Amino acid sequence: MWGKRWTSTWNLSKLHVKTKFPVPSDAEIARSQIPKPIEHLAKEIGIEKDELSLHGQFKAKVSLQVLKRLKESSNGKYVVVGGITPTPLGEGKTTCVMGLAQALSTHLERNTFACVRQPSQGPIFGIKGGAAGGGYAQVIPMDEFNLHLTGDIHAVTAATNLLAAAIDARIFHESQLSDKTLFNRLVSTKKGSLFTPSMVRRLEKLGITQRTPSELSVDDQRRFARLDIDQETITVKRVIDTNDRFLRQITIGQSPTEKGKIRTTGFDISVASEIMAILALATSIKDMRERLNAIVVGFSFSGEPVTAEDIGVAGALMALLKDALPPTLMQTLEGSPVFVHAGPFANIAHGNSSIIADRIALKLVGEDGFVVTEAGFGTDMGVEKFVNIKCRASGLAPDCIVIVATVRALKLHGGGSPIVAGKPFPQEYTCERLDLVKAGCANLEKQIDIAKAFGVPVVVAVSQFTDDTPTELEYVVESAKQAGASAAVVAEYYALGGKGTTALAKAVVAACQLPKDNFKQTYDEKLSIEAKINAIVKDVYGGDGIDLSSKAQEQIQRYTAHGFDNLPICIAKTQYSISHDPTLKGRPMNFTVPVKDIRLYAGAGFLTVLTGEMSTMPGLSTRPGFHDIDVLDDGTITGLS
Amino acid sequence: MWGKRWTSTWNLSKLHVKTKFPVPSDAEIARSQIPKPIEHLAKEIGIEKDELSLHGQFKAKVSLQVLKRLKESSNGKYVVVGGITPTPLGEGKTTCVMGLAQALSTHLERNTFACVRQPSQGPIFGIKGGAAGGGYAQVIPMDEFNLHLTGDIHAVTAATNLLAAAIDARIFHESQLSDKTLFNRLVSTKKGSLFTPSMVRRLEKLGITQRTPSELSVDDQRRFARLDIDQETITVKRVIDTNDRFLRQITIGQSPTEKGKIRTTGFDISVASEIMAILALATSIKDMRERLNAIVVGFSFSGEPVTAEDIGVAGALMALLKDALPPTLMQTLEGSPVFVHAGPFANIAHGNSSIIADRIALKLVGEDGFVVTEAGFGTDMGVEKFVNIKCRASGLAPDCIVIVATVRALKLHGGGSPIVAGKPFPQEYTCERLDLVKAGCANLEKQIDIAKAFGVPVVVAVSQFTDDTPTELEYVVESAKQAGASAAVVAEYYALGGKGTTALAKAVVAACQLPKDNFKQTYDEKLSIEAKINAIVKDVYGGDGIDLSSKAQEQIQRYTAHGFDNLPICIAKTQYSISHDPTLKGRPMNFTVPVKDIRLYAGAGFLTVLTGEMSTMPGLSTRPGFHDIDVLDDGTITGLS
Repeated sequence: MWGKRWTSTWNLSKLHVKTKFPVPSDAEIARSQIPKPIEHLAKEIGIEKDELSLHGQFKAKVSLQVLKRLKESSNGKYVVVGGITPTPLGEGKTTCVMGLAQALSTHLERNTFACVRQPSQGPIFGIKGGAAGGGYAQVIPMDEFNLHLTGDIHAVTAATNLLAAAIDARIFHESQLSDKTLFNRLVSTKKGSLFTPSMVRRLEKLGITQRTPSELSVDDQRRFARLDIDQETITVKRVIDTNDRFLRQITIGQSPTEKGKIRTTGFDISVASEIMAILALATSIKDMRERLNAIVVGFSFSGEPVTAEDIGVAGALMALLKDALPPTLMQTLEGSPVFVHAGPFANIAHGNSSIIADRIALKLVGEDGFVVTEAGFGTDMGVEKFVNIKCRASGLAPDCIVIVATVRALKLHGGGSPIVAGKPFPQEYTCERLDLVKAGCANLEKQIDIAKAFGVPVVVAVSQFTDDTPTELEYVVESAKQAGASAAVVAEYYALGGKGTTALAKAVVAACQLPKDNFKQTYDEKLSIEAKINAIVKDVYGGDGIDLSSKAQEQIQRYTAHGFDNLPICIAKTQYSISHDPTLKGRPMNFTVPVKDIRLYAGAGFLTVLTGEMSTMPGLSTRPGFHDIDVLDDGTITGLS
Repeated sequence: MWGKRWTSTWNLSKLHVKTKFPVPSDAEIARSQIPKPIEHLAKEIGIEKDELSLHGQFKAKVSLQVLKRLKESSNGKYVVVGGITPTPLGEGKTTCVMGLAQALSTHLERNTFACVRQPSQGPIFGIKGGAAGGGYAQVIPMDEFNLHLTGDIHAVTAATNLLAAAIDARIFHESQLSDKTLFNRLVSTKKGSLFTPSMVRRLEKLGITQRTPSELSVDDQRRFARLDIDQETITVKRVIDTNDRFLRQITIGQSPTEKGKIRTTGFDISVASEIMAILALATSIKDMRERLNAIVVGFSFSGEPVTAEDIGVAGALMALLKDALPPTLMQTLEGSPVFVHAGPFANIAHGNSSIIADRIALKLVGEDGFVVTEAGFGTDMGVEKFVNIKCRASGLAPDCIVIVATVRALKLHGGGSPIVAGKPFPQEYTCERLDLVKAGCANLEKQIDIAKAFGVPVVVAVSQFTDDTPTELEYVVESAKQAGASAAVVAEYYALGGKGTTALAKAVVAACQLPKDNFKQTYDEKLSIEAKINAIVKDVYGGDGIDLSSKAQEQIQRYTAHGFDNLPICIAKTQYSISHDPTLKGRPMNFTVPVKDIRLYAGAGFLTVLTGEMSTMPGLSTRPGFHDIDVLDDGTITGLS
């Protein structure tokens, strides 16, 4: 029929869904479905009892032991879902991931996992509702998905703040003590004077061979004990998972107890932290531990990079993060498995869910199964970083790229008036305007080009909304096919869940059976920093080149001198254009991307290139979403969507 | 034998412990014991399956449904453990609680629950190790107890920070908008112009009867929309659960996006937040929701209190805290049940574990069982607040007060040289010095007097350390009996666990069978604020009276004018003296307590009286405990003690 004959190895029980029209609210749909106990689901999909750590009835952490047990098994097909350049409302990629996973698993009866990011609590109380998908394509229970989950973001917050506190406290104590006192205090333990294992690694780095504290020369004592961090170079910001605009820029250390060591800094939202990116990219405890060691927190006055390991705090960070490393198992509205794990920011970080979740899922679905994972924002951003950062770290390659397109966004790219969140749609979005759609398809075509350049089959999912006309939808489908998509399908996951997504699912199954070209990353990581940035701008975005600020030039020199030039590149740019300029809609041409600042994330393992101001701390509006949220006496949470 | 014949209703399986001498490290002891799967323990003690929410294999939340199911059952005996005035090393109250619970449950075979606070992560990485008890009297698994637990402190952090962000954002938006725009934005929702339920409560408070936004008069629109909070009066500080000295005093709002609305504030450690105190004192979702509503965040320019409900955020806070309300079940080293729940600071807050945990435990142990709960610091502090704040909120009364005494601390009170954490003991602490012990017993006698004044039998636990001599220990026992303790017993919980604590356990059982005098609180809450503070100072501490600052006098006037004068009093003072002055050891006399500041915690339901500077944010030392902590490749955490 549509591929080779296949038998499910899972014994998945489906959750029956009776769709209604008009589609009720997300919360109403989510609440009307009783999820399976998560241990039942785990059993159905072959997770063993001792690999499961329950967190309540409907969430469970799945141990990395699965990878060891299934080491010899083949991976399933790996499908990544990106999008066209979105409107401020988002084009429903998570909804597509859920709909596609529901269709594949409960309608086509293929073993299928969906892998998505854990949402930040900031926007949940800030703007409105959550990020669990929508309509009949959701993760449930929705409130548990949106609040706390299994505490991973809290662990990232705690670890980042311990690191930040350790940096400032170390600078403070170094400023107050003589070399000798500083050294003696650092090596003094209950058991006498001793170097800890991470202190020994610092000695190795400094080329000091003595391992008995009292036998170090005065000079070596000083070299060991004084990190001499230049406050001005500190790159680690404190974080909270709350939209708090008043913490964007702050002055700290103003209590008399800190004796004048004040400095200006700020808080980021937790998901913008390097440690969140590390969680998403780590492949094992050992790998994570090494990434934490490698975090460069700043530079010494003599220009040397100072790491978390130098401060002696990396092991403690790992202790805080250990239980965040296994992914969290939940389920779709139709009862198929979902991994929720990590949630790195999609601009200053790489915006993809975790490697560990994808890897475990690929083993669990088995050779004939499917893993559908999401990449943040447009294909130019999320999928580019998926390919060049995430796949480089994991060694995996996708079998198919799905690009989600909406008539609404294409109209915007074709010249429609701006869409503003919370305001009614301008008229052109509620009636047929084929002219706008036609013009806007330039964006879709470019995103398809970008995806095809990675050497992977492309399927376009055209997400159907109530106001879309058959002519408009048909045009998008044809246009996608002409641009080289191996298939383009209208999908109704929002209104119909899995049963509205079976045609898309079949197209994805077929695409995954196509002969793969050689999977190609955009650049060799051994190239110079400048060459790698240029490669992304020219070969992915279609720009003319880059314009390096003098700050960025200095940074390139510094990073190169210390051997950080062989890291992949993470571009932080607007999500509203394929270029760096949010006003350039459609398929921008003839632009040069300014490179203002380059941040070193040595632990996460990439260099983030800033092309403009990036807000890493959202704010609360005049009427934040929290006004609608409450809890009934029986514990039911209301207003969460 | 020692009380009426009794049959256990639990079917508790004991964990065998083979004690070693010398006593190994806490971590080694904890790691050598394999805990029971927590669902087995839950089943043994009569918790039903749907009342249990597992968090991994060894921790579970226990639903408040137990209270409903066992509504008609009698409570067990309620034992509170306080102490004499401690040294900076602490006198091992948690260890006593665990040892006593182990002895009662696994040696005397009485149904027994231990109830303790969740430790803050700040000191764990700051000073050293955790707070799980010690030696052979511990909660296990120790690493899970010390790190994250089931996320309750993280939830308190998230809620407090959302509240703080909401306050500053509201002030900012009010400063930027006209009355009309402000009003319109506040009432505008997707479904049109509407008042939320908490907005309706604000209308009620303001005496506005209209419920249709468009029909409010211009004046009522202004009254409704403008909270007009005076920035200088904001009492809610942001929190993190990290020792971060650089956040003690900070300036926020310095980003240009906040348009100059800068202000000075600071972060507290999470456990010092009002919301943590609320978690510890709440008795149900409904009660907690009302306490959150009632939090006074500051005063308006016209002097009116502004609440979390006025800001419209109390429901969202409750959504964040809902899953923190049920207590967490763990176990002792010998396999008996422990509730770990809430951890309010013991000076600016009341320093006791939660009412909900104690209540559920009292029902689960049944009429013949025991609940051993801990009250922070000396009897003058923790037990006084237990009696006057916690028992007032819960309606419960203790059956016995246990006072933990150590020879070490009594020597300090008798004139021994200062004990400094991390430094070796001065010589008088390592040899027999009966003179110092005799002089120091004045502190023990006063603490016994304090406890007896509450009308409850007192048992003194003399905790045996290696260097204590039989003569010293015997003297303390006799001295305690003469001071009116119904029993005084030397206990070896640290070195021997439950089997070293059976004599103490028998004494506690016997004390709980004594006829109870009338349980007496120190003051009637209807008295004036000044009279209540005086009552604690004179009748509990034995001081001459109080010295009110002019600031405190103004605060008393303001709080009284708004009807907050009928709240109980929480004194924030040093834990190192029964007086307000840490240098006054033993049994201080002839002192007057300065009242510098009075803080209103209308949600928690008490007024905190500050008698001096109170640090609510610990710092990291030159060599913090984090240096010792690491994670092995198999996930084992090392260095956590």
